[in-house]
Amino acid sequence: MLEPRIFKILQEIVGSENVTAEDADRLCYSYDATQQKFLPDAVVFPADAEQIALVLKMANAEKIPVFPRGAGSGFSGGSLPVTGGIVLVTTRLDRILRIDTENLVAEVQPGVVTEQFQQAVEKLGLFYPPDPASLKFSTLGGNVAECAGGPRCVKYGVTKDYILGLQVVTPQGDIIKTGGETMKGVVGYDLTKLMCGSEGTLGIITRITIKLLPLPEAKKTMLVIFDSIDGAAQGVSAIIGGKIIPTTLEFMDAATLECVRQATGLQLPAAAKAVLIIEVDGDKELIERQAQQILQIVAPLGVVETRVAQTAAESEEIWKVRRSVSASLRKVNPDKFNEDICVPRSRVPDMIREVEAIATRHAIPIVNFGHAGDGNIHVNVMIDRKVPGQLEKAEKAIEEVFAAALKLGGTMSGEHGVGNTKSPYLPMELDPAAVTYMKAIKRALDPNHILNPGKIFLD
Amino acid sequence: MLEPRIFKILQEIVGSENVTAEDADRLCYSYDATQQKFLPDAVVFPADAEQIALVLKMANAEKIPVFPRGAGSGFSGGSLPVTGGIVLVTTRLDRILRIDTENLVAEVQPGVVTEQFQQAVEKLGLFYPPDPASLKFSTLGGNVAECAGGPRCVKYGVTKDYILGLQVVTPQGDIIKTGGETMKGVVGYDLTKLMCGSEGTLGIITRITIKLLPLPEAKKTMLVIFDSIDGAAQGVSAIIGGKIIPTTLEFMDAATLECVRQATGLQLPAAAKAVLIIEVDGDKELIERQAQQILQIVAPLGVVETRVAQTAAESEEIWKVRRSVSASLRKVNPDKFNEDICVPRSRVPDMIREVEAIATRHAIPIVNFGHAGDGNIHVNVMIDRKVPGQLEKAEKAIEEVFAAALKLGGTMSGEHGVGNTKSPYLPMELDPAAVTYMKAIKRALDPNHILNPGKIFLD
Repeated sequence: MLEPRIFKILQEIVGSENVTAEDADRLCYSYDATQQKFLPDAVVFPADAEQIALVLKMANAEKIPVFPRGAGSGFSGGSLPVTGGIVLVTTRLDRILRIDTENLVAEVQPGVVTEQFQQAVEKLGLFYPPDPASLKFSTLGGNVAECAGGPRCVKYGVTKDYILGLQVVTPQGDIIKTGGETMKGVVGYDLTKLMCGSEGTLGIITRITIKLLPLPEAKKTMLVIFDSIDGAAQGVSAIIGGKIIPTTLEFMDAATLECVRQATGLQLPAAAKAVLIIEVDGDKELIERQAQQILQIVAPLGVVETRVAQTAAESEEIWKVRRSVSASLRKVNPDKFNEDICVPRSRVPDMIREVEAIATRHAIPIVNFGHAGDGNIHVNVMIDRKVPGQLEKAEKAIEEVFAAALKLGGTMSGEHGVGNTKSPYLPMELDPAAVTYMKAIKRALDPNHILNPGKIFLD
Repeated sequence: MLEPRIFKILQEIVGSENVTAEDADRLCYSYDATQQKFLPDAVVFPADAEQIALVLKMANAEKIPVFPRGAGSGFSGGSLPVTGGIVLVTTRLDRILRIDTENLVAEVQPGVVTEQFQQAVEKLGLFYPPDPASLKFSTLGGNVAECAGGPRCVKYGVTKDYILGLQVVTPQGDIIKTGGETMKGVVGYDLTKLMCGSEGTLGIITRITIKLLPLPEAKKTMLVIFDSIDGAAQGVSAIIGGKIIPTTLEFMDAATLECVRQATGLQLPAAAKAVLIIEVDGDKELIERQAQQILQIVAPLGVVETRVAQTAAESEEIWKVRRSVSASLRKVNPDKFNEDICVPRSRVPDMIREVEAIATRHAIPIVNFGHAGDGNIHVNVMIDRKVPGQLEKAEKAIEEVFAAALKLGGTMSGEHGVGNTKSPYLPMELDPAAVTYMKAIKRALDPNHILNPGKIFLD
């Protein structure tokens, strides 16, 4: 528990209505999408960067851990208060400060919800592509901290690619500005990109300058049903190899489809063994041609059926299938470990085969779906924790999944981050020397190790 | 001078034919495109990362400064041996290791010349967009170290946006791998992007994994001549504000055009006061429409004449004008300071007016051209050093140019870097706290301050 003295300082900084140590509140901020639970000692809701700076200065002086948190929707435990201490919630910093239609730039506070921001810029004919599945509730601050991805990243890149500058409160309580609002800038080290994806361990983001694009004129969505998982996986590399980069290239295997069918009543032909959801966007006439090319490329790969959306409503129908996946999986299996390995796109078929072998070896269901277009597959290991031995099996299977991804030239995580869930596996992927340098950077910025400890690195 | 003992160690590491302390060789590696001159004590030409690691281990132990150098084409002094010591030339590492047409990825050594790489991938229907003006001789290693830009960055982004992973030799002589070859990856801090643009102060790049795009089907080049500088500058923001992002949007003012005319005999109407070179690329039919839209957008802004290239040869004619600028300026004025400030695109007209006022105030010619589409203007202060007082005037003018860019929300450097030429001005742009953190990172990686000292930061 926090000393009353510390609690009083927090009250003075943020106002007594914006700090709590009540059991119910501590419980509310103890978990995230990984379903782990760590109780914080207190939860603070600062109003601005200045208050955050004061909290961090105090925490640094008193050596109290601070855990920044947006919506708590992360899949790797990034916001969890694993050692107790203070959870610092950024949701009160929730304003879109400006959208500059002349320069295609926006400035926002970290607590803005991703979808709300997207809708705001789209009203002005602009476009913010990154679209993590959590976009209805996740915050832009969290998206930046984890470098969130999403289906559209195949064509448009990840969150980092849209961040021009930041205001950050450092672990020592300095408020610094990184980057700027210009499209180019090479003055000093790129602290902006260093902060993106650093999982809240190097600073707390308090303002974000975002690059926007013109909103594409139109889009076209297609659902292509394959008679084998291999056909769909080959389809992915055939499309990219054919030099077309669609907006999205989402993949679902037979097990995923079966869960969706059970949960939503989705109708699919009996021969359906895998599905690709392909979307192209841009100029109206151009995307018609691209859609035709794509269908030609995949045609020889065992296509059972093709559904091409003719209206926005039909497109929405197709996307509903994809969006129902997470909930459907949970409905069928109570516990799942959602990993998000990423391999070079051409290795997707190999990766799927490796996962199938691992599932068979451990006699444990593994369900695959995700952003196949950039090689980022969500490998879901499905268990019931209450069945003895299943958790151990799952852990073994996950380690083998990571090993397979690395063997194929990939990574353990394309977009979820390391957090506390993947930190034990970090040495499988990174050179010891590289880890040493990363830790040296962490130490240089956070000598007392107070900001989000226990994340990324085991110690 | 290096002690004979040290010279002998270098000979043992790289072979005696690959290290020199001859006066003529030292002179050859004493300067870059800034026309400054600093004699190194020795020049080494290692063959691989292992040799570079041995050189750095020794230099770190002996506290001898090492200055990495590609083609020495930098515009900010990044490769200059400002304190003497060892110049380490990477041009022997000049192989394209692989071009993966399935995954749209390439792996290269740092000494590969940019244009040669572009030509190699284009033969396979692929595309590497960054195109610094020096591409005929600059190396990809140098491009990454400085985060080079170029005309096409308006649409396609800068060098950093194409770097997926690196092999780097750290100042302490460790060989580390950063990033990977997947389109996404969030395991650990992004050392890849931190290295990009760190101007050779944090590590020596020995291998580069590059993201490629499909080669655009076609392109269309237009030269639009305006009767006022303001019209051209407004044209830039009108096009972007019209939600078209062309491939290039290059700007030349009247003084630039006059230099080009004197040097090359270029024919222009008498009323020509500024020029935009606009190129669009992509689908053949789409770019025809985009070109028409662009011409409509700029039409009310005082267009004197429009030349639309109908053939590749005509396009080349237009680009020749742009490429002749640097040489033409030098022909007319012996000494020039080529700064590359960058402002939000809509502020380009304001920036041009500020520069005109500065030129008038100091009675010194300043010539503007560059990548107006992303607000990156090359401001060339033209003097003859031999005329007493001109150098001092130029220095005053440059400081005022930087101040104006910063006042307009811009940066001192869009693509050239800080090097030793802009380091005195760094505090004008960066927070003292941000600089403190950057230096802490430098210290963490290079505790003995042996790698490229005297760059970016004054001390």
